[in-house]
Amino acid sequence: MLIRAFVPAHITAFFVPKFNEEPLLAGSLGAGINLSKGTNVFVSLEEGLEKHIHIAFNGEPVKKENAIISYSVANEIVPENFIGEVEIWQYFDFPNGHGFGNSAGGALGTALSLAFAFKEKTFLQAAQIAHKHEVIHKGGLGDVIAQIHGGIEIRIKPGAPGIGIVDNIFFEGYKVLAVPMGRLSTREVLDSDFIRLIKKEGEKALNALLSNPKVDVLMKEARGFAERTGLLSGELLEIAKEIDKALHLPSSMIMLGKSLFALLKENEVEKVKFLLDDLSIDEYHICDVYTQRPSVERWVGDGK
Amino acid sequence: MLIRAFVPAHITAFFVPKFNEEPLLAGSLGAGINLSKGTNVFVSLEEGLEKHIHIAFNGEPVKKENAIISYSVANEIVPENFIGEVEIWQYFDFPNGHGFGNSAGGALGTALSLAFAFKEKTFLQAAQIAHKHEVIHKGGLGDVIAQIHGGIEIRIKPGAPGIGIVDNIFFEGYKVLAVPMGRLSTREVLDSDFIRLIKKEGEKALNALLSNPKVDVLMKEARGFAERTGLLSGELLEIAKEIDKALHLPSSMIMLGKSLFALLKENEVEKVKFLLDDLSIDEYHICDVYTQRPSVERWVGDGK
Repeated sequence: MLIRAFVPAHITAFFVPKFNEEPLLAGSLGAGINLSKGTNVFVSLEEGLEKHIHIAFNGEPVKKENAIISYSVANEIVPENFIGEVEIWQYFDFPNGHGFGNSAGGALGTALSLAFAFKEKTFLQAAQIAHKHEVIHKGGLGDVIAQIHGGIEIRIKPGAPGIGIVDNIFFEGYKVLAVPMGRLSTREVLDSDFIRLIKKEGEKALNALLSNPKVDVLMKEARGFAERTGLLSGELLEIAKEIDKALHLPSSMIMLGKSLFALLKENEVEKVKFLLDDLSIDEYHICDVYTQRPSVERWVGDGK
Repeated sequence: MLIRAFVPAHITAFFVPKFNEEPLLAGSLGAGINLSKGTNVFVSLEEGLEKHIHIAFNGEPVKKENAIISYSVANEIVPENFIGEVEIWQYFDFPNGHGFGNSAGGALGTALSLAFAFKEKTFLQAAQIAHKHEVIHKGGLGDVIAQIHGGIEIRIKPGAPGIGIVDNIFFEGYKVLAVPMGRLSTREVLDSDFIRLIKKEGEKALNALLSNPKVDVLMKEARGFAERTGLLSGELLEIAKEIDKALHLPSSMIMLGKSLFALLKENEVEKVKFLLDDLSIDEYHICDVYTQRPSVERWVGDGK
């Protein structure tokens, strides 16, 4: 039995972390975008003599301790009485650690696939398990709940799916440019001293967006947040300013990765490609906003 | 400018009405199914010298007082400063008053189309406006929030979108049979004396489903609820029993319409068609469960 789930990559424009000892109440406020590229999870189940859970990233088997979030999710959803092989193959369209919500995508894709396979847990129960292990292991705070809503999203109340509240902004005719340029440790930023500045600036940006919920306000606030917190600086800021020359809305930094993003109108696509070529940047993605819910289905191969 | 929205028909299997003086807190608990057929709303906007809002059902213009819910929704979302013609064309795949959530489908489709067109309100703000006028004018209590989640849904906390909580059950390989047989006034049932029995039986069914969230439990509880409340009786019950002969899960009554529904495995479709033919029932629908969010987009005609 082979199950496939797709979870969109989620990039955060700005955020306010909301820590809580109870993982289901922890989360974040803020805004972000779900992308048409992301994480595909394939789960294969075969009954056998012993229970084993195997996880692979992009085709390479990984040790339990290097996939602890997805492993913990699987362990909680596979029923006690299932004896056999559970193989979880996770494929990521974006590099890990660059701010695309891969960790949450893998956790949520695993949770939805296994819940679909065994049909003992509901959608929210599965999504809460993914959120919980994301929070406990500091993979992220708000990606899971953002990913289950899709679209261009505003997190207006923090917490796990079924507890937090996510709204969406209407938009039209935009593609998303994403430029992954390096890793940034979510954990290190969340543990750092300037978390207070992030909270202050995040709240300011959120209030501005809520009072005028439009994509141009989103991008303006995202850029202001990125610069005022000092997260976007140096070479990355210089590149952002170059990209701005091809676009009518400001580009900004993906929270939290050494990566940039921007919203493009159809007629700006060629201009920005030319400019990136000029800057010798050859790893970039132009994709659509993913406006649906994550998908999960029995996988019947290419014939479908 | 022409905008198109699709909102799935929503059929309720069982419910617990939750009245509240504050319309955003009113709603229902219960379970139901969103269908791949439903309501298509086309909104056309043209600037002009005066502001007019026109509504048509299935191509026929209707008076304001006969489309008061959608009219109120439009009035609240079209900005003060828009002067011109607002035409709202609603097309229903199922007959009105038969329990398919047409009223909510029209209200939500209108709200999403207009919010998409003007981009001044968020998704939840638009959906809450639809919910509010549904509740005020007694169109329904839980259809709007169920429709924005899609799938086979369980309403676990009552209220408007952004306030109530909706969960989903995983399922596989089922189609939905829907047999509209007559009208039933939601308003009359909600105002009647046996609302207390409905509440008691609805809570029992909900608890049973939550403790074992599977489609076979849903259908068993739906049928139990329908019979014990006395809503499913007489000729309608006789037909339900006939339909059961072709299926492995019990059929039940759509709340609130004089209509029946059932979940079919692929290999039961022909059997049930034969049986319905035998019963001389020729108006029925076999459709899929709609597992996505309502769609809204600029309409560019057949070429797209």
